Amino acid sequence: MVQDPDCLFCRIVRGELPSTRIDEDDRTLTFMDINPASDGHSLVIPKAHARDLHDITPEDLAACSVTAQRVAARAVKQLGADGVNLLNCAGADAWQTVFHFHLHVVPRFRDSPDRDSLRLPWTSTPGDPARITAAAELLRATT
Amino acid sequence: MVQDPDCLFCRIVRGELPSTRIDEDDRTLTFMDINPASDGHSLVIPKAHARDLHDITPEDLAACSVTAQRVAARAVKQLGADGVNLLNCAGADAWQTVFHFHLHVVPRFRDSPDRDSLRLPWTSTPGDPARITAAAELLRATT
Ligand SMILES: [Zn+2]
Ligand SMILES: [Zn+2]
Repeated sequence: MVQDPDCLFCRIVRGELPSTRIDEDDRTLTFMDINPASDGHSLVIPKAHARDLHDITPEDLAACSVTAQRVAARAVKQLGADGVNLLNCAGADAWQTVFHFHLHVVPRFRDSPDRDSLRLPWTSTPGDPARITAAAELLRATT
Repeated sequence: MVQDPDCLFCRIVRGELPSTRIDEDDRTLTFMDINPASDGHSLVIPKAHARDLHDITPEDLAACSVTAQRVAARAVKQLGADGVNLLNCAGADAWQTVFHFHLHVVPRFRDSPDRDSLRLPWTSTPGDPARITAAAELLRATT
């Protein structure tokens, strides 16, 4: 298992730093976020160190996603959440602050500002079709 | 392949509604969001209908995640993004508006308000340890 001795989350995996764990399997560990966006906000990480979405192996990414699905189901059934958001931040410019891949699992609560004060990070408005097409051209696979 | 005749995204999969496609494989389809949060904002969906994160099969969820990783890499390399966010919204109370699972892939651009005006959906502040522990108790697997 690849580990980074100085990485905060690798140290949590090794038990060198405390965390409130809620799920563990062969590839993943899930623990509570100490700066929660809502009640029950947790983080799913691969046990093997990976810097971000670009660095994680597809196998570990798939495992983290399936763990997040399992934890999200519990948020609804056991915590009474009305909805759930999953968020990954890849890169400092996308709000990543700890450089060990993590998937935020954020339970949502309707009409409960004390438990949930999230706002959609963007205003949903129609885009310019020409700009969308131009970006699409660049996003297609190059061969 | 499970399809819902009235579902907007199933109709896109079948080609009955137009979309600007940027990626396709056996299980997934990726097309541009017409209400983009930033330049290059796309949606990864399973070809098989699934209402949301709770309904999608683990196999399709894993496939969508790996597709998102591939598209995110292109956003950096081919579109010049400085970072990428992945977001899933499960349930109306988590901002889901189309009830066919989709993973937002949102390229991020530093200091470019014209291309990217996203804000973090929450204020990151330390939570109350007792509340975090109480939520953790409820989020652990029940046997
Ligand atoms: Zn690490
Ligand atoms: Zn559908």
